[in-house]
Amino acid sequence: MKILIVGGTGTIGKKIVEAFKTKHEVIIAGRNSGDINVDLTDKTSIIKMYEELKEVDACICTAGTGFYGDYYAMTEEDLMIGIKGKMLGQMNLVLIGKKYISKEGSFTLTSGIAAEHPAKNGTAVATINGAINSFVLASAQELKNDIKINVVSPGLVEDSFERYGDFFPGYNLAPMKKIVNAYILSVEGAINGKILKVFS
Amino acid sequence: MKILIVGGTGTIGKKIVEAFKTKHEVIIAGRNSGDINVDLTDKTSIIKMYEELKEVDACICTAGTGFYGDYYAMTEEDLMIGIKGKMLGQMNLVLIGKKYISKEGSFTLTSGIAAEHPAKNGTAVATINGAINSFVLASAQELKNDIKINVVSPGLVEDSFERYGDFFPGYNLAPMKKIVNAYILSVEGAINGKILKVFS
Repeated sequence: MKILIVGGTGTIGKKIVEAFKTKHEVIIAGRNSGDINVDLTDKTSIIKMYEELKEVDACICTAGTGFYGDYYAMTEEDLMIGIKGKMLGQMNLVLIGKKYISKEGSFTLTSGIAAEHPAKNGTAVATINGAINSFVLASAQELKNDIKINVVSPGLVEDSFERYGDFFPGYNLAPMKKIVNAYILSVEGAINGKILKVFS
Repeated sequence: MKILIVGGTGTIGKKIVEAFKTKHEVIIAGRNSGDINVDLTDKTSIIKMYEELKEVDACICTAGTGFYGDYYAMTEEDLMIGIKGKMLGQMNLVLIGKKYISKEGSFTLTSGIAAEHPAKNGTAVATINGAINSFVLASAQELKNDIKINVVSPGLVEDSFERYGDFFPGYNLAPMKKIVNAYILSVEGAINGKILKVFS
């Protein structure tokens, strides 16, 4: 398969790239890195990327920005960081991308545990993750040409623990192996419209 | 209690107004109707409304617009209708309103069954409803002064059946009495951070 991994140089992305590249052709997309550049906040950049690639069998997105910070100081501008950078970004990757994905291909998006178990200061991120989960449930019913779509919702990512662990006291680590498996299940399995929760 | 009902002239709103006004002071806010005007897509309009009201004990929102339509023709502009008119609108009602709600007061937002069981052509609405549900879970942990927040997620609303029934084939009707009770439970009960699902 020809697999596009948007965010393929990130914490989750690079582990997925490792796993898929043994059996598949992997194209890494990143804002300033990877094989091809894409800015998720810019529709024309997404269109340009797909036009260059022509057709892919699977599109995985592990990229997305969001706002963490004091609830009482949070503004609409803070909310828009995640709405544009993750929610609309991942949605556009599907809505624009659906004509570039081959028959029986797939999309795999990334939300997160915050949709159901938000951390302190994480309201903006929780909201975006909840939106992506529901978008995937709905999109699975709409996509034609037997294209599937799932979303991986990881807990506190094992490899992010040093950087973000302090923000999530008491959250169990989601092992990288399990997170990677969720993306493999979505791309190579038969499932469609599933929220793959990698947390306990 | 002094209860602000944004969308109080709508299908759900008017039934809630009837129920609350027997025991409480009810203020109806609407875009062009009610006791006070508010445009949910406009932050300054929300601020102006709260400034006029000074303080309320409960804020209920049953208002919000969204896009229904063909998935393959849906654009980012279509998505923005619900993002601005319902998602950010209801969020701003809380984020701006939190300093106008009295101690031990409450917010009650409205999402919908689409967050978990989207209807055909309802991807935009599903996404927004999922976002609102997660926003409420997160906000319940953050609001100070013992202010509570819940969200009512109704199924196919009984009184909307004639107008919208054809869009939701096979969806069970959510009885008005049960929907109204969910808002009463949120405002007068002790619950906090709950998604009150009025569907089966």
